[in-house]
Amino acid sequence: MPVQVLLSVHSRHVANYCRLLKDELASHSIETDIHIETDTPALIDYIIYSPDGPIHDFTPFTQLKAILSLWAGVETLVRNQTVPCPIVRMVESGMQEGMTEWVTGHVLRHHLGLDEVLDGQDGVWRQRQLMPPLARDRCVAVMGLGALGSPCALSLRTLNFNVIGWSRTAKEMAGIECRHGQDGLYSTVADAEIIVLLLPHTSATENIVNSDLLARFRQNSVLINSGRGALIDDKALLAALDSGHLKHATLDVFREEPLPLDHPFWNHHAVTVSPHIAADTRAQSAMSMIGENINRGERGRTFLNLVDRTLGY
Amino acid sequence: MPVQVLLSVHSRHVANYCRLLKDELASHSIETDIHIETDTPALIDYIIYSPDGPIHDFTPFTQLKAILSLWAGVETLVRNQTVPCPIVRMVESGMQEGMTEWVTGHVLRHHLGLDEVLDGQDGVWRQRQLMPPLARDRCVAVMGLGALGSPCALSLRTLNFNVIGWSRTAKEMAGIECRHGQDGLYSTVADAEIIVLLLPHTSATENIVNSDLLARFRQNSVLINSGRGALIDDKALLAALDSGHLKHATLDVFREEPLPLDHPFWNHHAVTVSPHIAADTRAQSAMSMIGENINRGERGRTFLNLVDRTLGY
Repeated sequence: MPVQVLLSVHSRHVANYCRLLKDELASHSIETDIHIETDTPALIDYIIYSPDGPIHDFTPFTQLKAILSLWAGVETLVRNQTVPCPIVRMVESGMQEGMTEWVTGHVLRHHLGLDEVLDGQDGVWRQRQLMPPLARDRCVAVMGLGALGSPCALSLRTLNFNVIGWSRTAKEMAGIECRHGQDGLYSTVADAEIIVLLLPHTSATENIVNSDLLARFRQNSVLINSGRGALIDDKALLAALDSGHLKHATLDVFREEPLPLDHPFWNHHAVTVSPHIAADTRAQSAMSMIGENINRGERGRTFLNLVDRTLGY
Repeated sequence: MPVQVLLSVHSRHVANYCRLLKDELASHSIETDIHIETDTPALIDYIIYSPDGPIHDFTPFTQLKAILSLWAGVETLVRNQTVPCPIVRMVESGMQEGMTEWVTGHVLRHHLGLDEVLDGQDGVWRQRQLMPPLARDRCVAVMGLGALGSPCALSLRTLNFNVIGWSRTAKEMAGIECRHGQDGLYSTVADAEIIVLLLPHTSATENIVNSDLLARFRQNSVLINSGRGALIDDKALLAALDSGHLKHATLDVFREEPLPLDHPFWNHHAVTVSPHIAADTRAQSAMSMIGENINRGERGRTFLNLVDRTLGY
């Protein structure tokens, strides 16, 4: 019997994903039926999942071999008590490239003072005020050294920034000053002028940027969050911006998305709201990755990017 | 007799340059007198020159061994009929790094649509409109592959952009599609979505971006000029922006600096005026480079970055 795959994704992606996935699986010589809905859930082998698709209760899917997430952040799946099988998160080159470009662009934006240049189109020649320092004299921190944080840290290092990488457990990366644990966290935010959040959302990272940690940030520092909205205590961040302790926050992810119209981030002079565009799952490379994982599943091999449900990512 | 060096630079730099240069020359075991003015110009061996310093007539300096420019652009020196000796232009790592950071930052700004994000702080969640493409699907051109253009082209290539490099004569650079000559110029501006000007100002490059060339630019493309103001015919550029053929111009250099208050660039919705901050000569590395060239001069070796006065750079 062919492998039974159910696509539970936003309707606008169905046709494209279906076509690309068929090609991928054909290249692995795997016969497949791809469903967008089913009356026989017990026959489904794999669900391709995104939070904006129709399926959130996995109880009827009694024979699932894996849920293949289209998103890198899997906090909703990890907490879903009906998940009966392994969860695989999305790591694909398009997402990594997009994140690297977005993070590098926004770090350079703050490093170069682009906002001040754009605000200074008034006929006043501010050469001496606006001349930026060199990246080699600037310290940037990347919090989270996983599939997204690592390439961002390396890209910033290539541009000569002094890069501190922080992660839960000790890591090593060439050219990056790696720190970890609670002491490492405190020293990282004290040293860095620009801090990029790329941590997963877990019980250990929820509200990691709270009033206690913000008080330890270097004066006039900039926070960039393209990880998860729940990493930040919004009220504490607003207070740190209002007091002038932090200079700016550029946020691409929020606790509620779309960010509600009445959220104070929208109107805050020191906040840039970016509508979750830092990294997108790119259809071609995502389906290539999912095809490879179905191939692995069918041949009894270990899945790539298997989620540890205890750690939460 | 010690080597006689005259510093003809802006007064605010004199003390710092003097101190740094003394250290550099001491490290080469060269005895020196450093002057900031002189009654015996015929005794001066080297002049360290910037256009904002006091000396523009070199006639009295009859024994000069070299004029050591603090600037990368030497068009005023090349045209100065009183120059009696070799001209050496400034190429130093700080300037190269600053230019690479500025160019990479502004290319990413346009690539990522940062201006649209900054303009969209109005409560409307424009995720689908603002999701940028990947750099691997974007074509960027760097015109000029010299000491500044080359590292910029490589930095953009590292970020996965498709980079076309254009230069007067044929060059080769790994990963960069190098084109040259008039045909190469036409195809480059037709193919690139973002075009960076880093050419020197010579009789061959003056007004290279004129109405004829602009008509060959790809529709909706972006021009970034951190080379020299005279590369562009300002009126032709304004016309191309007004007609909507070009999307935006980000300009760091101008025919007259500071850019006059009544210049239409200041108020144009599709122009960003950047006050010549892309790259600065950094005192430490500049004096290291000048110390090395005085050392070479004293030991009869060829100067680094010697200017070809016929070519103009």
